[in-house]
Amino acid sequence: MQVRLSLLLALFPSALALWPQPTSINTGKTALKLAHGFDIKLSVPNAPSDLKDAVSRAKGFLKTDALAALVIDRGASAAGALKSAKSLPSLTVEFAAKNGKVKSISEEAIAPIGTRDEGYTLSVPADGSPAVLKANSTLGLFRGLQTFGQIWFDFSGTTYTLEAPIQISDKPAYPYRGFMLDTARNFYPVADIKRTLDAMSWVKINTLHWHVVDSQSFPLQIPGFEKLSKNGAYNPSAVYTPKDVKDIVSYAAARGIDVIPEIDTPGHTSVISKSFPEHIACAEAKPWASFANEPPAGQLRLASAATTKFTASLLKAAAGLFPGQFFSTGGDEINANCYTQDKQTQSDLSASGKTFAQALDSFTQASHAALRSAGKSAVVWEVLTPLHTEMVLDNPVTLANDTVVMVWISSEHVQAVAQSGHRLVHAASDYFYLDCGHGGWVGAFPTGNSWCDPFKTWQHAYVFDPVANLTAAQASLVLGGQSLLWSEQSSPANLDATVWPRAASTAELFWSGPGGDVQKALSRLHEVVYRFRQRGVAANSLQPEWCVLRPGDCDLTA
Amino acid sequence: MQVRLSLLLALFPSALALWPQPTSINTGKTALKLAHGFDIKLSVPNAPSDLKDAVSRAKGFLKTDALAALVIDRGASAAGALKSAKSLPSLTVEFAAKNGKVKSISEEAIAPIGTRDEGYTLSVPADGSPAVLKANSTLGLFRGLQTFGQIWFDFSGTTYTLEAPIQISDKPAYPYRGFMLDTARNFYPVADIKRTLDAMSWVKINTLHWHVVDSQSFPLQIPGFEKLSKNGAYNPSAVYTPKDVKDIVSYAAARGIDVIPEIDTPGHTSVISKSFPEHIACAEAKPWASFANEPPAGQLRLASAATTKFTASLLKAAAGLFPGQFFSTGGDEINANCYTQDKQTQSDLSASGKTFAQALDSFTQASHAALRSAGKSAVVWEVLTPLHTEMVLDNPVTLANDTVVMVWISSEHVQAVAQSGHRLVHAASDYFYLDCGHGGWVGAFPTGNSWCDPFKTWQHAYVFDPVANLTAAQASLVLGGQSLLWSEQSSPANLDATVWPRAASTAELFWSGPGGDVQKALSRLHEVVYRFRQRGVAANSLQPEWCVLRPGDCDLTA
Repeated sequence: MQVRLSLLLALFPSALALWPQPTSINTGKTALKLAHGFDIKLSVPNAPSDLKDAVSRAKGFLKTDALAALVIDRGASAAGALKSAKSLPSLTVEFAAKNGKVKSISEEAIAPIGTRDEGYTLSVPADGSPAVLKANSTLGLFRGLQTFGQIWFDFSGTTYTLEAPIQISDKPAYPYRGFMLDTARNFYPVADIKRTLDAMSWVKINTLHWHVVDSQSFPLQIPGFEKLSKNGAYNPSAVYTPKDVKDIVSYAAARGIDVIPEIDTPGHTSVISKSFPEHIACAEAKPWASFANEPPAGQLRLASAATTKFTASLLKAAAGLFPGQFFSTGGDEINANCYTQDKQTQSDLSASGKTFAQALDSFTQASHAALRSAGKSAVVWEVLTPLHTEMVLDNPVTLANDTVVMVWISSEHVQAVAQSGHRLVHAASDYFYLDCGHGGWVGAFPTGNSWCDPFKTWQHAYVFDPVANLTAAQASLVLGGQSLLWSEQSSPANLDATVWPRAASTAELFWSGPGGDVQKALSRLHEVVYRFRQRGVAANSLQPEWCVLRPGDCDLTA
Repeated sequence: MQVRLSLLLALFPSALALWPQPTSINTGKTALKLAHGFDIKLSVPNAPSDLKDAVSRAKGFLKTDALAALVIDRGASAAGALKSAKSLPSLTVEFAAKNGKVKSISEEAIAPIGTRDEGYTLSVPADGSPAVLKANSTLGLFRGLQTFGQIWFDFSGTTYTLEAPIQISDKPAYPYRGFMLDTARNFYPVADIKRTLDAMSWVKINTLHWHVVDSQSFPLQIPGFEKLSKNGAYNPSAVYTPKDVKDIVSYAAARGIDVIPEIDTPGHTSVISKSFPEHIACAEAKPWASFANEPPAGQLRLASAATTKFTASLLKAAAGLFPGQFFSTGGDEINANCYTQDKQTQSDLSASGKTFAQALDSFTQASHAALRSAGKSAVVWEVLTPLHTEMVLDNPVTLANDTVVMVWISSEHVQAVAQSGHRLVHAASDYFYLDCGHGGWVGAFPTGNSWCDPFKTWQHAYVFDPVANLTAAQASLVLGGQSLLWSEQSSPANLDATVWPRAASTAELFWSGPGGDVQKALSRLHEVVYRFRQRGVAANSLQPEWCVLRPGDCDLTA
């Protein structure tokens, strides 16, 4: 009986394993294989080169994925059906907007959020006539190409699906689907970031939130501020030059990904003291725990006019490296004692007659004005003031309407942030922090555990409700969400396996919308893991392979 | 002031960063560099080829490690001292036992535990005269070569130490220092195992406990039982052929590592049902949770004479593949309901008039007798009987005196196991399980957490006391300990970063003995991470690099 059930499963290897799940999908039960001369044909006037490149990569993956179906017989039972299956000669990639201007993927990827069109339709007939991918944008076509690439399995060199015809109509539930990488606590070479961008694009993540510098190191080389990376990078090769940044930003954009850089201020800036000691309060002050949440201590002298000006110039110069709409000025974890103990800050406050909160407000306004003058909108963390209340909730810092707030401390703060009227991104530590659960990392603390224990499983993030306790009006402020990798205990060594496939779980939540079923999602997510591996990304196993090949059989209730 | 302190740290980059810490070490403060033509000279009569190979690898690492000192200036402040430093022309590797027979490392590595001599002395003079490594065994020489390789840093192509002269006298506190890898839940290619063996040897781990098969897959090809791997491997290439096993075992032995294979019985054997269904009770019975701790269910019909004979033959055949002294028959997680529901087992019990416990005893005796006839001593897990008591504690299974018991369920069971009089290995889930803390993996269980939460940090294992609550006599039964990687959620993708450097922490605990100080150990452990990376093992970061380069500055109290 069990053997027969397995055979059935082998013949019908679950629903088409697309990730993220499209808005609408209809599939049949007909076998279809790619013709030997299968081609992807562009029917796009003046097709931009990044679209041509995307097509070329998609064709490559169709050959190199060579992913055997994740069922017990790895597809052998389909061999008969494949012999008589029709061959798909081509996929036509069609720009559908009449009189629409054809822009490059790269241009569309960095257009203002909310204005991007990521939707597409995909039709894969069972009768041997060409498949058609249509969209009103090259960005939509790019998303659709990723979907097309997930349809196919390999059996003995034949690339096939058993579920033709396929009709898909798809667009994202949320315009922001991100991944944050911290390249300051530990450095990641450009190649690691590019590999991550590729992986992100495969699951339709459209934003890299790049927490590029922090107190520990300053790897970003900023024109006019080269001293910062010269003195602040871990070593001369642990630097992102303007050329590297351009390379990364271009690579991302060509893959439908916008890059939001972050220069966290006024806290998290200790390393600036190596180049501009006059701007940093409590630089490397000890004991660090009295002056910062983690070593080394050091914060911009936010009450100083000179430091405020320096910061504005720095942000503006950095903003020039990035073509996207958003730039994050951080704002988290401001330590009150650092400023209380800093004579200059105290004297600056006295001289100006400002309270600390007013000084923070002025500093933030100046920073954001500088970004605005560079054409950017600001992003901030929901911020701890020195009194440990939330900046956006009840302190006097005034954030412009277009400011986006990232909720990180707790998902319980979402409602309050939404009440402030700002657009928000879900990035809460209790759901989306991929680094949690790996123990304490500070020294001389044998019993230390992770502050954000436990480990965030893919299931936990997957069942998150982005609009819990929000009114409809508040819900409209939710741009989307992201998973995050802080790097105190991360490095290129564990990057792939720590991020994947968990970041894909969050990607589906915000593309397909909430309400997904972890039980049904699991086998599709296994396919993400196995397909990523075929493409050179070392995604980790979620279960024994025995379970992978027997969808449902390792469910708690099976 | 802080700058000056940093300079001082740069000049004296902490104690010599050896891992594991030697029994006795004296160091000076003189700079010494390797001569351009530096050589390692063997003064060993009829030097075995594995020793020659080890010397060759050691020489290679001296060139390719190229590890800059883990201090802020990466050793730049030593440049002056290096200019006038003496050059070390050579290391003489000397077999010191008078009239002693020179055996190969490989022979010595698999000699009965307790009879191996892993000690050595190492002298590195500061005056430019040759260094000398002495031991009474090639195994000791091999251990010493690893130590010698950890002495050196690189600065601009100069390989140097600042702490000559160096006198080391070293031997292990415990004869068993292991690492367990589960290659059944997910498969690891031979190359991953070899890379792991290399890494193990660098920190003087001397045992690979190879949990090679389990209920999920049977990758071990056993002569006479080829059907098991043919039907039970995940795919035809996910098989360890006898040639692969020989390759792995030889590779290990040449690196001073004994391999203890495990065929877990009578539980954890579901996969055998694909080839010998007559021997397996409750094969893939559902719901699995009623029949096993994890899917799929299936246990050897331990009350059947035929199955007992089959098992004995299987074990004996498998034992023939492995040259070492020990072979594990497992014995954990026997599910009572599986046997209660199995008509054949019930009728076998009736026919024999045996209680279940008596049948388990007979089965175990027969298995162990088969191993004994193959020249092996048995290893078992502390075992749950169907009544959830410990086999070795209060059930009637009689274990021969030479049986080694691995404590896994809890470190709290150590005392009771010791009271049974058996030699034991520390392998407790609450200290040494490297896979814990990554959430639940069974399907349809969004809130599932790891059963052995939390994640086991290196610090937690490091401060374990191997003889807590033991009398001196009981303490003498402690062979050592090991860290373990179960593979429900592990795979080649996360192998290196999950295992390293945490397994090194346990390696030092059992080589250097307990009482180590996590505060002092951290900077040495960072060096393990960075040196491993230079050698191609992707060990994970324990801290931001800022902390790595400033020993102590990220301590909780700093």
